[in-house]
Amino acid sequence: MSFLYKADPVRGMEWARLFAAKAPDVPFHIWPDIGQADRVRYLAAWVPPPDVTGQFPNLEIFFSTGAGIDQFDLAALPPELPVVRMAEPGIVAGMVEYATMAVLAFHRDLPAYIRQQREGRWAAHRVYPASKRRVGVLGLGVLGCAVLGQLRTLGFQLSGWSRTRRQVDGVTCYAGQEELPAMLTNTDILVCLLPLTPETRGILNSTLFQHLPRGASLVHVGRGAHLDHPALLDALETGWLSGAVVDVTDPEPLPPDHPFWAHPKILLTPHIASMTQPETAVEQVLANIRRHEAGEPLIGLVDRSRGY
Amino acid sequence: MSFLYKADPVRGMEWARLFAAKAPDVPFHIWPDIGQADRVRYLAAWVPPPDVTGQFPNLEIFFSTGAGIDQFDLAALPPELPVVRMAEPGIVAGMVEYATMAVLAFHRDLPAYIRQQREGRWAAHRVYPASKRRVGVLGLGVLGCAVLGQLRTLGFQLSGWSRTRRQVDGVTCYAGQEELPAMLTNTDILVCLLPLTPETRGILNSTLFQHLPRGASLVHVGRGAHLDHPALLDALETGWLSGAVVDVTDPEPLPPDHPFWAHPKILLTPHIASMTQPETAVEQVLANIRRHEAGEPLIGLVDRSRGY
Repeated sequence: MSFLYKADPVRGMEWARLFAAKAPDVPFHIWPDIGQADRVRYLAAWVPPPDVTGQFPNLEIFFSTGAGIDQFDLAALPPELPVVRMAEPGIVAGMVEYATMAVLAFHRDLPAYIRQQREGRWAAHRVYPASKRRVGVLGLGVLGCAVLGQLRTLGFQLSGWSRTRRQVDGVTCYAGQEELPAMLTNTDILVCLLPLTPETRGILNSTLFQHLPRGASLVHVGRGAHLDHPALLDALETGWLSGAVVDVTDPEPLPPDHPFWAHPKILLTPHIASMTQPETAVEQVLANIRRHEAGEPLIGLVDRSRGY
Repeated sequence: MSFLYKADPVRGMEWARLFAAKAPDVPFHIWPDIGQADRVRYLAAWVPPPDVTGQFPNLEIFFSTGAGIDQFDLAALPPELPVVRMAEPGIVAGMVEYATMAVLAFHRDLPAYIRQQREGRWAAHRVYPASKRRVGVLGLGVLGCAVLGQLRTLGFQLSGWSRTRRQVDGVTCYAGQEELPAMLTNTDILVCLLPLTPETRGILNSTLFQHLPRGASLVHVGRGAHLDHPALLDALETGWLSGAVVDVTDPEPLPPDHPFWAHPKILLTPHIASMTQPETAVEQVLANIRRHEAGEPLIGLVDRSRGY
């Protein structure tokens, strides 16, 4: 039996060190050193290799090293192979930090003050209490709920939207396409934390932006393909949206001539809102291996019918 | 009996509206309309007028409209006149928001990503968990403790320093000049929330910076005169400090040719970290008037011997 890792090799070395300390009985290999192919029972990868079960006939679980699984073709994996998403505490904490920072930045006019500094202008804007600022989160999974929990401690007015109805303490919850406009109408700062599925591809488009109140802003930490780039540029141009923090794009990296780079109302970061932390990721993977061996349900198991 | 307000007149109109609603029996005047001088029992001001008790012989309380009282000469007020600082929940919440935003910005390398965007460079920096980031707060008053309370929910390693020893849940506390170096040595992100007194004037100087580890950063939300500007520029120049968020300066506004404006490692905001919110400020003032009339101790009463 062995464990094969196929992702960033620098972090792979940290995984190897952690496996050696915490699970010395599990032989650990870093791609392209696969060891004996027929002994590979567990594979962790950002994107699985082609013909994964042909190559590894005894594979029992595929672990995605990311929180999402849209970076590979789920249908290309055999239906009986369990696919597990990364939902370790490190990735959650990182997202909470980044989203909180971005929401506070819009709440406190940081982008405007950065522009004013460049212009050499000393002028205060009125501060509104968080209780008068409406923050809406698209996606009420582990990440969306954790972000809302943190924003709640700051006193914001909160709403959330998901495909199926959810209940979240202190959050006005909306569900399904038909309730999306009502949620958007009451949102000053919109945070996208949706999974990427055929239904959510391109969801951040001009129709959605038009439902937001004039002057709203966007924190995009979902997936690049959620966002219609020309629609965002247009909404910023007309002043309908006042600003955007964009951490994910399609493609990544953005080409050098892409208008997001130099846009004065876009704060662009290179897909760093959250990254899997080796320490906590290995703990989650080992816990799932123990659960699998004990016949217990896996944490983060992907529901193939929903696609996340 | 009447209440006189002498500060920003736009906010004064809001105070007047709130007084009319909450304390219709208290005649409210906005400077320079002082009404009948001998009827003024309460005065709220950023800076008191000269010869305040000569002009208002029946004055019973002076309310500062700011959290600090260093903007005027305390010694010029008669010693028996109670002086009350503003410590209303609005000013506390604003400071918590701003300081949390600034700490998260350094924790998540936001200044570096802003520079990278200008350069058109897509490169991720490693994310460290908050539990490995050491945040130290100078000043453990109402504001310092509130900021630490919020940072604690994000999982940072916290320390605090004050003149006299304090105990704060989840925070390693240091006290007095002799323990300051030990606190600084263990601080990656330093937040200044001290009152301005003769002892703290110029405290953010090259001696203090040298005790910080190389690469540390500064969030300055105390008072302008805490900070030695050339020392900060020098520490950034040599790379000893990696960045600073500066909300308060001396003088304010900064002159147009001041090097902070264009400095790539300084994020400058125009003293907006926190502002008194009329709604909650009026509540605090009215509560103190009721306490005063009932002979109860005032909230936010300045200790003249400490100077804050």
